[in-house]
Amino acid sequence: MAVGLRVPRGFVFSAVTAGIKASGKPDLALAEAPLGACAAALFTRNRVVAAPLLVDRDHLKRTQGRLRAVIVNSGNANCATGASGIAASQAVCAELGKLLEAAPEFIFPSSTGIIGVPLPVHKVRAALPNLVSVRVEGQAGLETFARAIMTTDTLPKVASTSFATGGEQVTVCGVCKGAGMIHPNMATMLAYIFTDIEATPAQLRAALKPAADVSFNCVSVDGDTSTNDTLLLLASGASGVKLNGANRKRFAEALTSVCRSLAEQIVADGEGVKHVIRLSVEGARTDADAHCIANTIATSMLVKTAWAGADPNWGRILAAIGRSGIAVDPARVDIFIGDHHVCRRGAKGDFSETAAHTHMLQKSYDIRVRVGRGRGHAHVLTSDLTAEYVHINADYST
Amino acid sequence: MAVGLRVPRGFVFSAVTAGIKASGKPDLALAEAPLGACAAALFTRNRVVAAPLLVDRDHLKRTQGRLRAVIVNSGNANCATGASGIAASQAVCAELGKLLEAAPEFIFPSSTGIIGVPLPVHKVRAALPNLVSVRVEGQAGLETFARAIMTTDTLPKVASTSFATGGEQVTVCGVCKGAGMIHPNMATMLAYIFTDIEATPAQLRAALKPAADVSFNCVSVDGDTSTNDTLLLLASGASGVKLNGANRKRFAEALTSVCRSLAEQIVADGEGVKHVIRLSVEGARTDADAHCIANTIATSMLVKTAWAGADPNWGRILAAIGRSGIAVDPARVDIFIGDHHVCRRGAKGDFSETAAHTHMLQKSYDIRVRVGRGRGHAHVLTSDLTAEYVHINADYST
Repeated sequence: MAVGLRVPRGFVFSAVTAGIKASGKPDLALAEAPLGACAAALFTRNRVVAAPLLVDRDHLKRTQGRLRAVIVNSGNANCATGASGIAASQAVCAELGKLLEAAPEFIFPSSTGIIGVPLPVHKVRAALPNLVSVRVEGQAGLETFARAIMTTDTLPKVASTSFATGGEQVTVCGVCKGAGMIHPNMATMLAYIFTDIEATPAQLRAALKPAADVSFNCVSVDGDTSTNDTLLLLASGASGVKLNGANRKRFAEALTSVCRSLAEQIVADGEGVKHVIRLSVEGARTDADAHCIANTIATSMLVKTAWAGADPNWGRILAAIGRSGIAVDPARVDIFIGDHHVCRRGAKGDFSETAAHTHMLQKSYDIRVRVGRGRGHAHVLTSDLTAEYVHINADYST
Repeated sequence: MAVGLRVPRGFVFSAVTAGIKASGKPDLALAEAPLGACAAALFTRNRVVAAPLLVDRDHLKRTQGRLRAVIVNSGNANCATGASGIAASQAVCAELGKLLEAAPEFIFPSSTGIIGVPLPVHKVRAALPNLVSVRVEGQAGLETFARAIMTTDTLPKVASTSFATGGEQVTVCGVCKGAGMIHPNMATMLAYIFTDIEATPAQLRAALKPAADVSFNCVSVDGDTSTNDTLLLLASGASGVKLNGANRKRFAEALTSVCRSLAEQIVADGEGVKHVIRLSVEGARTDADAHCIANTIATSMLVKTAWAGADPNWGRILAAIGRSGIAVDPARVDIFIGDHHVCRRGAKGDFSETAAHTHMLQKSYDIRVRVGRGRGHAHVLTSDLTAEYVHINADYST
């Protein structure tokens, strides 16, 4: 866990084992703003949406973006569980609300885990009193929270930063879980960003979207979008610093850097990932074209398996560009792996195979594609596709 | 190799080792219609197009769809090789044309193999006299052709059928190679269909597209489209039977059945494939919507790895449907694995996990998705994603 993690004021955290995970590891986590917080959230674009996300949207609407607490269970996604799944999520909120003396709509529920299995509500409810009783502030609290939301993640993921403004310190701190997008028994990207700045829900919404666009929305492990993806930003206001014109830029930078760090940690800890690739596409007609090309490359099984083998196979990248659906003239395409100019104007560049291969043995490196049509560009953080990924996701025990 | 393979009259075949493949296996194949043939061809939609395909298009245009011979080399794709790649392909045609006493534009060249490496033209040219001298008719000839165009294919792929009309026999026979779409050292789907019916190029074009749409265009191994994909239909006319109103339907059926068989053989012999899945999507608003949903399922790494593990994980299929971009109400979605109703109205169906798992241990089986919006439907022949696929495609030796 990160040394010197900064945790904003105005939040307490806790985690317990409710018995949802078969492993017996902590699987129920709470983050509470005892004096309340303002919130903004982004959810999966998948049309199959898990029950807690439907409840979250409803709650945020009813409270106009104000929340008291976040409750997360791991080990069960509460997705494709029908009307009873929604009732289960609501029951958890009602019970926790009683214990915290808050109306249920001020509770924000999240679930991550197996799809299509009813949430064991009785286990969650039975664990809530204990969960509430062990709340603590600061780094220790956040760390227990970070571990309890893990599924196939091998490491907890946290990031934080601070900035001073008018003699006061503002802190932004995030925690997330990721791994494969929809693992059979465990699922989803969940990310929670806590800050002690004072801001309205509208201000938080305005800040969150651009930060997500250059971080979580630029991540591709396997191209699958989970049914439970959630990104929540909570502001306690405990710093006493108002988000306004003077510090808006610095807050946006802090928020973006925390989101970026979390997104990078997700890719690096992706299922079976051995290499993280910072892929950039430049010179497309528009940014949207560049994104389309980048995503086609980043989700190509042939490209990703070549990366697993540290194979400087630029032909597969070129072929992926060609099938992206974007009008590209191959004779204008250049591809760089690190500084190795592997493809020059659509043909083999002047590079050493061995040197490029050695470069690709690194844990992370850059690949740059230029398509020579305009000024559109895109960045995607992606990974290789290894046999380990297949083993993790094909593993089925009757 | 198939027993009782029927080979149409009017064609001769041969193959030799030109030394392009490091393995020393046959890598140069010839199919010739000594009296000429009419032709129709379909090519990859990838915007990165290999040199021989550019030459093919030019030749077919110049001869108005008439051809004398097909020359295929394996071991080198002659793709991303710039202007010299086109010149190399043209040089091969010129040399072969001389030997066959035909103008170069009556030669149809194909290449499959590594991308971005110059075609060793001298090796091809040196082997041509021998190639021409060993031409033979019938099954033996076709079999040598089928073997010489193989790359990572583990088996040669041929199919044939005949029908009688007006006391005469018409034969349709096809040969192809497939495996992964763009292997580092070998690439591409190439398919050649030979028939002795008498038909104009326009008639052949009209027949080929619908047959391809329900066969080769419904196949997905890894979602990558090669830069060299080619489907060629050649009619020698040697049966003396004219393609006309009376036999158009029977010819279409024969052509479709040969294309379907070849497409199935490609999937079954896909790189690392352990299971072939006949996936159908029904009840979409339009056929196009159904295709989009089917393709999203068929290219999902999470779905394909679940199939590798014979895991009846309907949640991953549901999640893939949800991210397809098509408006679908999850509460109307039903999913069947064989007869096992694994997902009913968006939630877990009433089925035995063990029985469904056992069903999925078969080499091939059906998966049926109903989305309850209309009458649009689509069929895709697809495969699982195994660790073996990753090993084949990540294997890189410096």
